[in-house]
Amino acid sequence: MALDDAALDTVFRNAHTVWDFADKPVADETLQALYELVKLGPTSANCSPARFVFVRTPEGKEKLRPALSAGNIEKTMAAPLTVIVAQDPFFFQKLPQLFPAADAKGWFSGNPDLAEETATRNATLQGAYFIVAARALGLACGPMSGFDKVKLDRAFFSSSGWKSNFLINLGYPKDGAEIPERLPKLTFEEATLFA
Amino acid sequence: MALDDAALDTVFRNAHTVWDFADKPVADETLQALYELVKLGPTSANCSPARFVFVRTPEGKEKLRPALSAGNIEKTMAAPLTVIVAQDPFFFQKLPQLFPAADAKGWFSGNPDLAEETATRNATLQGAYFIVAARALGLACGPMSGFDKVKLDRAFFSSSGWKSNFLINLGYPKDGAEIPERLPKLTFEEATLFA
Repeated sequence: MALDDAALDTVFRNAHTVWDFADKPVADETLQALYELVKLGPTSANCSPARFVFVRTPEGKEKLRPALSAGNIEKTMAAPLTVIVAQDPFFFQKLPQLFPAADAKGWFSGNPDLAEETATRNATLQGAYFIVAARALGLACGPMSGFDKVKLDRAFFSSSGWKSNFLINLGYPKDGAEIPERLPKLTFEEATLFA
Repeated sequence: MALDDAALDTVFRNAHTVWDFADKPVADETLQALYELVKLGPTSANCSPARFVFVRTPEGKEKLRPALSAGNIEKTMAAPLTVIVAQDPFFFQKLPQLFPAADAKGWFSGNPDLAEETATRNATLQGAYFIVAARALGLACGPMSGFDKVKLDRAFFSSSGWKSNFLINLGYPKDGAEIPERLPKLTFEEATLFA
């Protein structure tokens, strides 16, 4: 059953990157409801390597600040919440629980290159599911890749060993905010081929 | 405006990976409508590095076959369509068109590591938007990462230089097909932190 036009508008056509959010916090229950959707998006062998850190305290934001690119500091400090989309390089240790049908842990435990590629691809997919699910719940996102991963990982993940992938400023859209003009996109002919 | 439960069910809660599709082709117009949604998903500096190859001819499928992992051959040969989610390593040459506000091409043209990381992250995000948009249009997906990238890229991209990222078998769900039991997922407490 396809979505109706209003739903497609919410998730795709009218959605856009937001930097200036309404002055309204994102409730814990909303973050949990969001995760309950995100976790359902497909990953290879159900490996689910993404980890999400919800930075919302002044202390957390200050820990983030030195890792941010200059152009991302002000908007990140002002956002109700900043999500670190991270990945657990040892995601495969949970595969006996997540994928009991095969010894999937063994595919990765002796192959760090495959483990890293798999963690990165699948955590990135989960980051995209997060953006879409947030929009589906009426939230707005400002995704960012402009930050220093080494600094961020040292500040947040020195004990867990998680690795940052990208950041998302998260909140509610401002009522009556001006919708910016869309940037040009590649045409169907430019971006696709038939074979 | 949040999506209603029926729409959330379609995109997330009732959606699942499908390997056995209805005997119904995916029309060109449907693929174009799908791309028109996918292209709207956010990428950093609007860089839009993903390229989508729709493999649906017997010749195309045979070109794909030698690159596939053994477990993926039969279902891929039987699927109405297989999408190669690829990326253009020289995506930044289109940035003067896609991001006219700054010299974004210059950020990447002298920095192959940043270009590769950016192409990979953003094409993967676009691959996830593709999965979600396909479901939103009533299609079903079987994403796969089990294939030999070197073989596939040599077979399909020796002249374009594009690089494969992952594959998606695509079609319509079968009426009355049994919905498989969901694999276990990480809990909110396992996959998230507050800071």
